[in-house]
Amino acid sequence: MSRLRAAAALDVEGALKQVEAAIAQAVDCQEPLLRQMVAELVRAGGKRMRPRIALLAFDACGGGEADLDKVVDAAAAFELIHTASLVHDDIIDQSPLRRGRPTVHVSYGTPHAIVAGDFLFTQGFALSGRLPKEVIRVTAEACVRLAEGEVMEQRLLAEEVDEESYLTIIAKKTAEPIRACAMTGALLAGAPKEVVEALGHYGLEIGIAFQIADDVLDIAGNPAETGKAVGQDAKTGVLTLPVGLNEAGTDPGWDAKTFRSMARQTDPEELRRLLQETGAIDKARGVAQKYSDRAKARLAVLPPGPSKDALVALADSVVKRRS
Amino acid sequence: MSRLRAAAALDVEGALKQVEAAIAQAVDCQEPLLRQMVAELVRAGGKRMRPRIALLAFDACGGGEADLDKVVDAAAAFELIHTASLVHDDIIDQSPLRRGRPTVHVSYGTPHAIVAGDFLFTQGFALSGRLPKEVIRVTAEACVRLAEGEVMEQRLLAEEVDEESYLTIIAKKTAEPIRACAMTGALLAGAPKEVVEALGHYGLEIGIAFQIADDVLDIAGNPAETGKAVGQDAKTGVLTLPVGLNEAGTDPGWDAKTFRSMARQTDPEELRRLLQETGAIDKARGVAQKYSDRAKARLAVLPPGPSKDALVALADSVVKRRS
Repeated sequence: MSRLRAAAALDVEGALKQVEAAIAQAVDCQEPLLRQMVAELVRAGGKRMRPRIALLAFDACGGGEADLDKVVDAAAAFELIHTASLVHDDIIDQSPLRRGRPTVHVSYGTPHAIVAGDFLFTQGFALSGRLPKEVIRVTAEACVRLAEGEVMEQRLLAEEVDEESYLTIIAKKTAEPIRACAMTGALLAGAPKEVVEALGHYGLEIGIAFQIADDVLDIAGNPAETGKAVGQDAKTGVLTLPVGLNEAGTDPGWDAKTFRSMARQTDPEELRRLLQETGAIDKARGVAQKYSDRAKARLAVLPPGPSKDALVALADSVVKRRS
Repeated sequence: MSRLRAAAALDVEGALKQVEAAIAQAVDCQEPLLRQMVAELVRAGGKRMRPRIALLAFDACGGGEADLDKVVDAAAAFELIHTASLVHDDIIDQSPLRRGRPTVHVSYGTPHAIVAGDFLFTQGFALSGRLPKEVIRVTAEACVRLAEGEVMEQRLLAEEVDEESYLTIIAKKTAEPIRACAMTGALLAGAPKEVVEALGHYGLEIGIAFQIADDVLDIAGNPAETGKAVGQDAKTGVLTLPVGLNEAGTDPGWDAKTFRSMARQTDPEELRRLLQETGAIDKARGVAQKYSDRAKARLAVLPPGPSKDALVALADSVVKRRS
């Protein structure tokens, strides 16, 4: 039976090509400079994790050929909205590099980067606007959480950040949109409410695991593999889990605020050495693993099959990635 | 008959209160600082021209009570998207004042202002996402034109701008969204295609007239009435119709580029005097009047009634306004 299902299953790589085509079509426009900016962004690619999750969730929930166009549009919409948020995020964080290339605001200036992000948001919503109301609602809800997470992060730059606030921020900024992708795949497959909810939890939890892993890479990653400058978060004062979990942070003589201020001024290599020695990086990896394990457990509601296996593998890969 | 119709007509002021309630509900969120920023923006108000046009077009096309909730949602969506674009526009143009108050990026910093704009875009699209697909399409199309207009304007800052480019930019940036409002009102009233198109032209043309009048106010307006600093466009190098139509601009010895560079460095009072003397301001007012007249002529497709009269009055008021 597992073999039969495998034979009938969705060609995920083929569907991802359809997603690329939908994205390319969505970003076409009448203004040459805008077209050039967004074409470079789209060509630069990325992991396409969000489209993959939407497609896998759709297939794992038994979505049929008749609704494939819808999940392709939804997957493209999520990727467009994600790219929009990265462009604006890079302005906010003053990041010089993304995927190994200069960020849009560095290449084209902040005014153009703001508009390029707005355009990608618009095109994402335009695609999602063709979908059922419930999908539009889930998408918009995720975008609201995203904006809340951005403001909360900036607001807490000036204050103490504890583990709970950190987790709330990354849930809103990273995990809620991934939750929306997984739920949308299940919704478009016509899955029952409890399955949609379980896929939503899966998305939320791998999203949290993914972001912790990302924050670990910010300190312990290899720039040649990540395509990003090292220690960017520490430099801009964003307190992440690996930094916050430092032993020193619990020492009343050297509190988290002092540590953050130190982290901002310390050479990235020195910071990495310090956090490795105190075991902070391993501890953060452990928290990511916990969320990845929880995510996998949510998939118990699904029947066996290649897309379920791929969702399990994805939950493993987010904590093991090097880029 | 006109009287009967008047008695049955839409209570526009009452419907505008419903629009305010829909906006207030849409901008509620979990992040206190974000809630505060957008509440201030919404409270600061504005002309609410876009909601008014959507409601009047709906009523003038015979829209009924059953679809009132839809046009209220659409009107709120347009106002939210408009406010979002103003917040981002003020960052791009580095405007210090809007509606007599410090702009969001001045009060809260650029990072928060970017996110506040994204949040308002999201909530606008979320509201519009509840509406018929055709309305979503028209809304998204207008937002794409808006982004194109922004980039085109910035791109042409470094080049010659002729009257045609200026009109294309203001059509995209200001008039296309107003066109979408008028079309949406007609669409939700179930008007036939040619009426929807005529209302679209009306919106486009009063939008162009409105923007020319706005650009005249930038130079010749009273800051106590406009709530904006004088000569802001000239200072940032944006070449508008009143500046471009200066006699000097047609003198080969003093081309538009030279004039623009001069305008950027000249004291606002001196610039106003110069443009009044050469008749440039009166000429720009004449162009605005031409578009206003064209817009009014489009309304011939509508039956007589108070909302049609109000649309005519609106086309008159956009060229006569002082703020």
